[in-house]
Order: sequence, then structure tokens, then C-alpha cells
Amino acid sequence: MSATLTLIERWTKTREYSLRIAAYLSAEDAAAQSMPDASPIKWHLAHTTWFFETFILETFDPDFHAFHPAFKLLFNSYYNGIGEQYPRPQRGLLTRPDLKEVLEYRHAVDERIQLLYQHHSSIKCDELIELGIQHEQQHQELMLTDIKHLLSSNPLNPVMLAEDTGILDTVDAIPAAIDWHYFEPALQEIGHHEAGFCFDNETPRHRQFIEEFQLASRLVNNGEYLAFIEAGGYTNPTLWLADGWNWIIQQQIKHPLYWRHTNHWQEFTLHGLHELDPLQPVCHLSFFEASAYASWVGARLPTEAEWEYAAQKNAQLTQLFACCWQWTSSSYAPYPGYAIAEGAIGEYNGKFMVNQYVLRGSSAFTPKHHSRLTYRNFFPASARWQRTGIRLARSIGKD
Amino acid sequence: MSATLTLIERWTKTREYSLRIAAYLSAEDAAAQSMPDASPIKWHLAHTTWFFETFILETFDPDFHAFHPAFKLLFNSYYNGIGEQYPRPQRGLLTRPDLKEVLEYRHAVDERIQLLYQHHSSIKCDELIELGIQHEQQHQELMLTDIKHLLSSNPLNPVMLAEDTGILDTVDAIPAAIDWHYFEPALQEIGHHEAGFCFDNETPRHRQFIEEFQLASRLVNNGEYLAFIEAGGYTNPTLWLADGWNWIIQQQIKHPLYWRHTNHWQEFTLHGLHELDPLQPVCHLSFFEASAYASWVGARLPTEAEWEYAAQKNAQLTQLFACCWQWTSSSYAPYPGYAIAEGAIGEYNGKFMVNQYVLRGSSAFTPKHHSRLTYRNFFPASARWQRTGIRLARSIGKD
Amino acid sequence: MSATLTLIERWTKTREYSLRIAAYLSAEDAAAQSMPDASPIKWHLAHTTWFFETFILETFDPDFHAFHPAFKLLFNSYYNGIGEQYPRPQRGLLTRPDLKEVLEYRHAVDERIQLLYQHHSSIKCDELIELGIQHEQQHQELMLTDIKHLLSSNPLNPVMLAEDTGILDTVDAIPAAIDWHYFEPALQEIGHHEAGFCFDNETPRHRQFIEEFQLASRLVNNGEYLAFIEAGGYTNPTLWLADGWNWIIQQQIKHPLYWRHTNHWQEFTLHGLHELDPLQPVCHLSFFEASAYASWVGARLPTEAEWEYAAQKNAQLTQLFACCWQWTSSSYAPYPGYAIAEGAIGEYNGKFMVNQYVLRGSSAFTPKHHSRLTYRNFFPASARWQRTGIRLARSIGKD
Amino acid sequence: MSATLTLIERWTKTREYSLRIAAYLSAEDAAAQSMPDASPIKWHLAHTTWFFETFILETFDPDFHAFHPAFKLLFNSYYNGIGEQYPRPQRGLLTRPDLKEVLEYRHAVDERIQLLYQHHSSIKCDELIELGIQHEQQHQELMLTDIKHLLSSNPLNPVMLAEDTGILDTVDAIPAAIDWHYFEPALQEIGHHEAGFCFDNETPRHRQFIEEFQLASRLVNNGEYLAFIEAGGYTNPTLWLADGWNWIIQQQIKHPLYWRHTNHWQEFTLHGLHELDPLQPVCHLSFFEASAYASWVGARLPTEAEWEYAAQKNAQLTQLFACCWQWTSSSYAPYPGYAIAEGAIGEYNGKFMVNQYVLRGSSAFTPKHHSRLTYRNFFPASARWQRTGIRLARSIGKD
Repeated sequence: MSATLTLIERWTKTREYSLRIAAYLSAEDAAAQSMPDASPIKWHLAHTTWFFETFILETFDPDFHAFHPAFKLLFNSYYNGIGEQYPRPQRGLLTRPDLKEVLEYRHAVDERIQLLYQHHSSIKCDELIELGIQHEQQHQELMLTDIKHLLSSNPLNPVMLAEDTGILDTVDAIPAAIDWHYFEPALQEIGHHEAGFCFDNETPRHRQFIEEFQLASRLVNNGEYLAFIEAGGYTNPTLWLADGWNWIIQQQIKHPLYWRHTNHWQEFTLHGLHELDPLQPVCHLSFFEASAYASWVGARLPTEAEWEYAAQKNAQLTQLFACCWQWTSSSYAPYPGYAIAEGAIGEYNGKFMVNQYVLRGSSAFTPKHHSRLTYRNFFPASARWQRTGIRLARSIGKD
Repeated sequence: MSATLTLIERWTKTREYSLRIAAYLSAEDAAAQSMPDASPIKWHLAHTTWFFETFILETFDPDFHAFHPAFKLLFNSYYNGIGEQYPRPQRGLLTRPDLKEVLEYRHAVDERIQLLYQHHSSIKCDELIELGIQHEQQHQELMLTDIKHLLSSNPLNPVMLAEDTGILDTVDAIPAAIDWHYFEPALQEIGHHEAGFCFDNETPRHRQFIEEFQLASRLVNNGEYLAFIEAGGYTNPTLWLADGWNWIIQQQIKHPLYWRHTNHWQEFTLHGLHELDPLQPVCHLSFFEASAYASWVGARLPTEAEWEYAAQKNAQLTQLFACCWQWTSSSYAPYPGYAIAEGAIGEYNGKFMVNQYVLRGSSAFTPKHHSRLTYRNFFPASARWQRTGIRLARSIGKD
Repeated sequence: MSATLTLIERWTKTREYSLRIAAYLSAEDAAAQSMPDASPIKWHLAHTTWFFETFILETFDPDFHAFHPAFKLLFNSYYNGIGEQYPRPQRGLLTRPDLKEVLEYRHAVDERIQLLYQHHSSIKCDELIELGIQHEQQHQELMLTDIKHLLSSNPLNPVMLAEDTGILDTVDAIPAAIDWHYFEPALQEIGHHEAGFCFDNETPRHRQFIEEFQLASRLVNNGEYLAFIEAGGYTNPTLWLADGWNWIIQQQIKHPLYWRHTNHWQEFTLHGLHELDPLQPVCHLSFFEASAYASWVGARLPTEAEWEYAAQKNAQLTQLFACCWQWTSSSYAPYPGYAIAEGAIGEYNGKFMVNQYVLRGSSAFTPKHHSRLTYRNFFPASARWQRTGIRLARSIGKD
Repeated sequence: MSATLTLIERWTKTREYSLRIAAYLSAEDAAAQSMPDASPIKWHLAHTTWFFETFILETFDPDFHAFHPAFKLLFNSYYNGIGEQYPRPQRGLLTRPDLKEVLEYRHAVDERIQLLYQHHSSIKCDELIELGIQHEQQHQELMLTDIKHLLSSNPLNPVMLAEDTGILDTVDAIPAAIDWHYFEPALQEIGHHEAGFCFDNETPRHRQFIEEFQLASRLVNNGEYLAFIEAGGYTNPTLWLADGWNWIIQQQIKHPLYWRHTNHWQEFTLHGLHELDPLQPVCHLSFFEASAYASWVGARLPTEAEWEYAAQKNAQLTQLFACCWQWTSSSYAPYPGYAIAEGAIGEYNGKFMVNQYVLRGSSAFTPKHHSRLTYRNFFPASARWQRTGIRLARSIGKD
């Protein structure tokens, strides 16, 4: 979305894009939940609407009444400040309301928001609309990752998207070998400081000292990762973090999440089942797999400060954005001086700052204009259903 | 179904009744699976069709070709003799084929069956059509119990059925107190011997000696069971089998499955949430709860032979059928001389004869004409999502 | 123990035999618990003492005071009527009291029992001493099965017993082929009726009608069972009960519990690791394995009534006792008219009458004089750490 | 140990101190394992011996032969480079070798080490002896934490240590209120650089920029933590990290690990059960509890760099060492340029650098001379059985 659009125009486009994704799905597709970490598409559609209803209409609309009294329970994700939540692993059991009623819910809340926006104006309200837009964009990416996970469990290998829909699950291949870009030691400013929206976890801007290092020009690709598999990468414990080794043994992990092996290698995508393309970036890897691969090639994952510093330098690095989220070695933690916001909105980010690792960049599933140099995505070390890949780093003369 | 109907007429009516149940449900309702023991309605519709396609068309139709090559995997329930099965706990993830395609599958197989029946006639084929009818009737009852379990997990307390649909989830109340009917010791013939269909587990007819006993004239009702709860029945370990006590502690069971307690007692039914009716038979109880209640009143559960003997005598006993399945103290085991059929059909009953208890009679969810004096239903001791209740028995002068 | 011994002489010998078993073990051997179903030897020594202290001294000794106030909690197994119990799976954590103190506990209680017996006489007290003897004998068998399970988990393959200790873990081989003995249909009295002790679950004596059948003259041996394994018995689902198949898949069961396969077959025993003897009865099998083997040879397991009837006839059957417990197809249930005793003693048997299968006979681990024709042992279908084997049965012309 | 002692004198004293701890325990105490994270004392005694046997004798002793061929399997903890390991959760089942044999093993290996040291000298060997000393000291602390956990599960509340043994489970109380010490922003050198031993994870020394902050002069004490409990700290989700909240709900955590509440508060220690002392530092807390407490008082945990910087300044801070390990907000990660050593020794530290948090300082259980300013201890966020406590930090004007 161009920066020249108004807030309400951007809000309108964001709301429409969610419906565009859902339009490729049947009512059944939109209702199922394939694992506790994922949610039904219908639930995403309702929850993002609930966000606007709860944080904006309930606060600013003098004539507010809830669309349905039970939706506060059903579509609250994790905000203890708002009240009880329906158990997350059972979201797939909510056959009622059906998709049609959820779409009516969206329509009704959207009308109230538009009406409110015509008569009410405040910085606080604008900030919350902006947060709601960003929140819905995050869920748009989750809609694509969650439906991909669901469809992948179906032996029919369903095709959700024709190639020409504009919603991508592959990226442009880069045939060139990896170049190593050198970065000098620096006392670097890290975190958001420009105009425009950011999440609270990107602040405050602060200083970090970064020792010299090298960063790979592009992401690791399928062909390179296949060499790791064929060299016995998944059977050699010395390459793995201890928790990672236990995890691949217990879960019987032997390749990236959507790779399939019969007599040759294929990959499941939203465009269907395809031959594995050796030049595509390897995708849907856990932090454990990314670390093991890096060990195998004598490299390591970058810290998030290294990544941000390098990205600021704009140093001919490719595939930073719109390709795969890139695991960093940094656990998700507050920046020095980070303060959690008051109220339920304060639950947005801060309470997840434990046992997760930061990912930088953005993916082919990330909505346009949702990515930033300072953006901090985060998932547990075993998560694989996001579009997650590997950009390698090296310390100088040491790794 | 009247006995005067032909086989193919009965087959037609049976196929129609499944669709009639499904007609009350949305595509989403029909797709969800609330627990591994239950299946989606859509899956029941497809599986019962798969049964006719596999055991009849594939055997007898010279022009047979499968409606869809993957359905053999997707809709095989547990027949190892047929091949692999899609994992049971994940049936709710099969958003494709959608409901519409499953209905087309039914239609296509039904047409082939009708065509076959016009040109082909054999005892073996007729037997398998009969078995397919009985099999589908069993699944019709499961459709109702499974959808009830699903809808009960929804805080909206959905109403599936208006009271006048003819599909019942309540029965006529019997205000009278329990009478105890006396039965003399007898060497009794047990098992099926009449004309007409029975499952193989009802045979061979054989002799059992039954000591004298008493049997209750009607089922235990909600009011009586509530007295057990209010007397601390769920907190007194001496009333419970050891496994039952562990089960109620671990699962935090405190009342029948669909009872709800706020400031008063209600019961969830397919007709919606209602005030608890003290005269309705208590329903949706586990074997453990049935046993504990019986201990509390100084009685016991009947054996299945006692039940069948008493039912043969037709001794003014009420609520034998079309009300609640009645737990017996008999574990599910083969009758003397029972032989498992050859081939995949042999997996129908015999392999389940361990760690299950026999229930006798039938329930308000059982399709008409599906019940018999010799019918042996069976579930594990902790199962509660079936319409299961209590008929008490007493030994003479001993319990 | 000869029947000519007095009660107190039998009590003395029983108490001594427990110590004799323990004498072969170190303090560490006696303290460890290898799984929740098993208990430490030290715990068995203390619990059997607690039984006499609680049910006899506390009831009949006017000067009673507890040896240690905490032992009522620590050494109560499952008697809810007595009070709380220390969690069963954690018995191996009770390093205090140590073995020395437990032996002092035994000594102190034994002195009080002897003193009481000199001055007090009552039928009730004698009955409880008898029950305490029988109870301790049951635990003597458990001591041997539990220590065997513990030692088997040690890669050192420890030898507990030299061959000449008189405590056996093998039996005399029978080289002859199985003979099939025919039994006529009969209305048979089943259950205990003679003078002498029996457990309440063996009563009341009652009538059962038994159809004609055949019973194998001896138990299935290792060589025969090995043929089942080599014929793919553990990979053919059609031979197994459904629960049994799931169990062997999940637990990765591929042979009897104590068999070991390297380039040849060995068997772990209390006498150490030995070559597998094809003529020894196959032992340490679950009900599931026993059933699958029976299916494979076209036979079945006997009912407990068939077993008792045949044993009464004394029909040249061998290995009925002192060899392996023999799985029957009968689930553990009360006999008609069975009544649970009042008070905590009533918890001895009745509350376990669900989801267990009856075993008949006795094993090489069973103390002498502890076995009877009417004895009903019982374990869940998956239990394997007892000395459990297979005697086959056949219906006439049907299986 | 004074720095004037020779390497072999320090080795001798270290070996003796392990035996001194074990001397307070019975054979049973030394054999039990209370949870998978803990190990039996006997296992610690053997494993630390195995370390010297494997990494020194096997490498440098030309006449090497293993004390027992099976010990390589039994007492290897996690070194995949050495070979297979006995399953960690089952270490309590290793009743053989018994304690006596393990002590003989120690004696035999010690004699060989002493003999080797007389005739062999090399920097590599000295380094490995030093590593073996440090390794055994780490296990000495684990011996105390593991036995404490074991004894705490015993309702008898056993006393392991009289107060005058010199092995402490309490520390000097500090009655004064917390002072907040201010630290200026600095580009600080972090990591080991002095002469003397350090673990590889303390290197390489590198630069980190630290923003200004405040650090508490002493640890949080029991009285202060009790106020948190009484104010509802364990029932207010807004104070907790999301994973922490799930953890206290699922595990039903309501107070520090060894606190006991009847009508008043007590604390279990190796000196027995005592009244809770409000001035003792609160101890045996998880990272989650430490974080929640910090949130409640409007503070936070320090980063490990802040802690090391402040400790370098020696700024009147108390209870840095020999009291409680202090949780930091830093996840355990490699320092820039960290390189894992070659061979099995390389498994010592690096493979654990995921999903753990760094603790700084040392505890009352830490052997003398084992602590350093740069020492990095690490445990998962839910670990509580170590002596872990809270030192608070504050950002300037922001938290």
C-alpha cells in the first residue's frame, strides 16, 4: 500500500485482502484446525474483526452494542485483560457461527467503524486503527501458513491457488553462489526511530556493539540443503543442538516440513505438489535445522543486531524481504528500556518474550508494506509451519 | 421398516435416512470431529458409501471402477484386510472432498448398486446388501451421538433439531417407582436363532445357566441419579471400581456428560439446552458411573444373559428399547463356538472383543427396526457419548 | 507347608520366606522401582508387615501403638478405607526408612503378633492372620516378578539366584507334542466349596453350563512360539485383537518380555541370561500375545470355567500348577451372588473387577501351598511381567 | 582451595570432597533418582570417575584397560562422540554396580591417575585434569541439589546434614533494605581474560555496549517474596510471561519449590524442615517466578552483561557469590567468535545453547574456588531444583 493512501483507505484495503484470501476456500476449508498452533481461517476472519470491535468500537462508539454477546469469549485469542478465552486447541470445533455469519459480522463491524470514523477523530483512535491494520496483516500471513498446513495433511494434495492469483508460495530463484559480505565492528543504533508505525517490541532505539562479521548474500537454497540431507545431516548428532537432536529423534524429522520423498523429491505448496526446485530458498525449517545446517557448513546464524546493521547498510544483500523469514541466533527479549503498554494491549508482545527466537526480514506470504528493517518476528525453535529459511553468518577467522 | 418391504426398498429407505439426518447440518457442522472416538458426519456419509462400493460393487460389478482412487484410503475405517487407513483422529482435517462431492459420491454409488441389483442376483450379494443396511443404521446412530458431542462443545449451545422432526433425544417419562421382577434359575438358550438378520457376534445360539435374580422394571431416572450426586456419590471412593475412581479424579468427572450446573441443573440435547427433567432416564453415563450408582443403592448391573433371558420372558419390563442402551456387567467376548468370518468382513466384530462391556436394548437414537432381543452393543467402560443408561439387577438375598 | 502345621507355624514360615527372598538382594536392589506397576522389595517387606499391624494389631491389641506414625501413609497400598496413600509410582523414592529399619519394623510387628496370639484367640483374628498369610504369599510372588523386571533393565544382566536356591525361574520341560483332551457338555459347579482358605472372589459356588470343548495337555513352549514369530506373527494384524495390534505397534513389541535377540535368541531369568530353551513353556506374554498365538494355530484361550472344570476332572493335563499362569478369555467379574466384605478389607478384590482378565493355575514363582483349583488371578490384557503363558482350547468343530 | 596448591593436590581434594558428601548418605539414598533432570549420587560418583578414565587414562595411559567394559555405556552422560548412553530417566534402576563397587571404581581410577601423573606430563593432560576437577565440582553442586530434591519427596522430611558439617543450605541474612546502585553506560569488555581456568563458554572476551541501569544491592528475600504471594502474585496472569502462566496453571505451582504451608510457612532444607526465615534470600525459584516477581515490583532481571559489568565494578553489592544463583534475562548463547572444541569434549557446553537462561554468581552449594565473575551457569526457564534466586535491575526512568 502506497504511503499516499489515507489511514481509512489502508484500513479498507486490509479488510478486503482478508476476504480475498478466504475466497479461495470452501466453508469446510475455512473451519478446520490442523494443530493447536494453527487456527481456522474463519476464526482469523472473526478474531481480526473482534479486535476492531473490542479495542475501537467498545471504547469510542457511544452507541456500542456487541454484535453477539458470545463472540467476546469465542474470538478473544489470549488477552487475559479482556476475559476468558475459548480453548485454543478446540477452535476447529466452532462450527457455529458458520462462515456466512462471520462474514456478516465482518460487514457489520466494518460499517460501524466507517461510521465512527466519519464522526469521531482522535489520535488514540487512529493509533488503534493502525494497530488493527497491522494486526490483521499479521493474521493474513497466518491464514496462508495455517491453510497450507491443513491442506498438506490431505492425501489429495489440494491446490488452493492458481499460479496467477498474486498470492505467492515461491520466489525468484538466484542461481549465483553465496557471496560473503564483510561488516566492520561498530557501535550501532538498533530499533525503530523513523516516522510511521512500528510494534512496541522494536523500541526503544538503543546502542549495541557489534564485532566484525560476514553475512551471506542470499538464502540457502533447496539444492544446498539437499546436499546436507544426503551427507547424513539428520543422522549426525554432533551437528545439532542437544534439544534439536532430541526433537528430530522423537518427531522422526528427516527433511523440511513440506518436502515429500518417493523415488524423487517433491514439495507441497499452495500451488500444489511440485518437483523440488534446487534454486528455490529452502523453506519451512525449524531453528534447530537452520542451526545444524550452519554447523555443517562451518558457519552460524546471525544475531538480530547483525542482520539489522547489515540491512541498514543495504550491502547488495538479496532476499532480505518477501522471500523467507530468516532465523537469527537471538532469543526474543526486550530491548533495554522496553516498557509494556498499559491495559490489554500490553499483552500484544511483551508476554511472549521467553523461549522464542527472533526472525528477521519477511516472507512471500507477508502482506505488502508490512515489512520493515526493524521488524521482529518470533517463534519457538521447533516451529516449521511458517515460511522460515536460513541466511548464514560467519565471525572473522573463528567459526 | 415393515418386514413387508423388499430388500432394495429397505436399502433405499436406509440410504435416504442418512441424508435426512445430514440435512439439518451445515457443511461446517458435517466436517468437524470433536474427539478421536467420534467422526465427522461427512465421513460417516462417505464411509457407509465406501462400504457398498468396496464389498459389493468391487466384488460383483464387472464394470467396476472406483469413484475416486483415494477414497479407498480416506474412507476405510479399520479394515486392515482392505489396506491402509487415514489416521482416525485426523478425519476432521479432510476438508476435501467437500460435502457436495461426498453427496455426489453417494449418488453415483447408489446408482451403480441399483443397476447391479437389476441384473445380478445372488445370495452372497443380498447378504452383503443386508449387512450394508445394518452397517449404515449403526452409523446413523453414531451420526447423532457424534454431532451431539460436537455441538455440546460450542458455548452457543446450538439447537440441531426442532422437537417435531421425529428424530428424538428424549423419551416418554415413567413416573412410577421401580418394580423388581423376579426370574427363576434356568438353563437358558442365549443368542440369535430366528429368521432374519443378525450380526455374527449374536451367534451361535448356546446354553447358559442363570441363577435366580431380580431386574428393575424401568431405567434409573435423572431425579434418582441427582440424589446420588447430592449424597456425595462422586466423592466416595468405596462406591467405585478402582479404575473408575482414577478416571473420575483424572478427568474431573462430576456428573453425566451433558449435564450442566450453574445455579440449577440443565441438560444439553439435540433439541437445545433444557431444564433437567427428573423423570427422564439418566443418560450418557459410563460403565463406571453405572456401577457406582448400583453400588450406592445396593444393587448391581445385570449380566447380558440375565437381560436377554428377562427380555425373552417379556415380563412387564419397560424402556427395554428405543430409550437408553443399558450397561451390563458382561465384558464383550465371543459366544462358545463363535467363528470369525473369512476376509475383511471378519474384522467387523471379532477383533473388538477385549476391554469393552456389552450394552443391551437400544436407544432413542437407534434407527427403527434395527434392534433385537439378542443385539450386542459394546463400548469401553469410560465411554459416555452414546445414549447409555442404567437398568438395575439384584441377586437374591445377597447383594 | 503341610496342612498339619498350625496357623502360627504357617504364619512363621511365611514371614521367614519373605526374608529369604530379600536375602539375595543388596539394599539398593531392594529399594528401586522399575515401573509404576512394580514395587520395591523393601516396600513389599514393609507393606505386608503394615497389613498385620493395621488389620490385626490395631484391631485386637489393647496396648497398640504404631511402630512409626508415618508408616500408615507410606505402606498403605490402596485401601481408601484406611486413609491416604503415598503415590504408587514414587515408591522407589522412599530411601528412608532404609532396609535395616524396615527389617526392624518386621521384627517388632512379628513380636507383637506372637504375643497377641498367646493371649488372644478369636475366629475373626485367626481369619485375618490367615488372610495376612495369603496376602504375604501373593506379595512373595510379586517380589520375584518385580525384582526380575528391575534386574532385566540393567545392561549387566545381573544374576540374582544360583540354580540351587530352590527359588525357580524355569520348569521341567515336556518334550511331547500337545494332546487335545475332550470334555463333555456339563452343568458344572464352579467356585470354592471345600474346607480351607479361599479369597472372596472364589465364592459363592454356583452353577455354569459349559458346552463341549477340548483343552491342550500342556502349555505352549518357546519353540512353538518362536515359529509364530518367524512366521510374521507380530506383523500380521488379522491375528490380533484391535487393542492388541495398537499396543504392539505403539510399544514396538516384537517378542516375549524377557527374550533378547542378537544373532541368536536368549532369555533373561533370575538365574541370569541363558540360551532360549525351545522346550520351556513360553512365558511373560500379554493376553494380547496369547490371543494372537491362539488365532494363528486355529485355537482359542479357554474360559475360566472350562479351565476349572477340566482341572477338577484331573484329566492327565500337565503344567496346571507351578509353571506359568494361564490366560483365560474370561474378564475378571464377580460370581453370581458375590458380596463385597464390609470395611477396608472389602477393597481387597472387588474393586478390581473391571478391565482385567483371569489367569488360572499358578507359576514357578508362586509360593508352595498357595495354589488352588478355584484360584482366580487377574491382570490387565497388556501385563507381561508376571510369569504368564498359554494353554490352548478348542470348541468342537467350530474354531 | 588456595591458588598455591598444585594441580594434583587440588585434584586430590576435589576427589575427596565428593566422598565427603556421599558419606552422609545410605546406599539407598545414593541410588535413587527423583526425576529425569536429577541423577543418583552413586551415578555422579561414577560419572565423574568415568570422565577421568575416558578423557585422561584412555588417552594417555599406554597400559589402559577399562575398569569394567559396561561402564562406558552406563556412566557416559551425553557424549555422543563417545558412544551410546544408558537412558537418563532410568539411572535410578542401576542397582548394580552397587555403591561399594562404585567406590572401588573411584579408587582404582584414582590410583591410575596418580601413577600416570608421576610418569607422564603434558599440557594437554594437565588441561584435561583441570577440566576434570571443574567438571567434578559442578557435579558436587548437582549432588547436593539432587539429593535435596529426592529427600524432599519423602514425607519423613529427612535431615541429611547437621548444621555444623560445613556444607550449607542457608546463608547469612541481610536485614537492610535493598539499595539501588547506579551504573553508567559503557562499552564493556565481557568474558574471561585472566590467567587460570575458565570454561569455553566464557570466551572469547569481547565488547558489549551497556546502557545505564540500576542493580539491587542484595537478593530478594523470603519476606519480600511472601508479600508477592499474599498479594495474589500466583493468580494474576498480567504479571507472568505467557509460558510461565501456562506452567504454573498446569503444574499447580503456588510457591517456591521447597516451601510448605500448613497453618504457617516452613521450608525444607538439607538441615531439615525449618520455619521460613523472612530474611533468607528466596531460593529455588524458576525464571518464570523471578520474572513475575520483578514485574510486580516494577523492576526486571538484569542481563548477564549488566551483572558482569556491575560485579567487575565491585560496587558494594552483596550476595553475589555463595548464596543463590541469580537468574538473568539473557538466554544462553555463544559469545561472538565462540568456537566449539574438537571431539567429544566439544559437547561440554556448546550444544546446550538453546532454550536456557544464564544464571550468574554462585550458590551456597557451589564448591569453594569454583566461582568466577565470568562464570555462566544455565538452566531452562522452569528449573527450580537448583539454588536459584532473584537480583533485581532497573532501566533508568523507563521500567
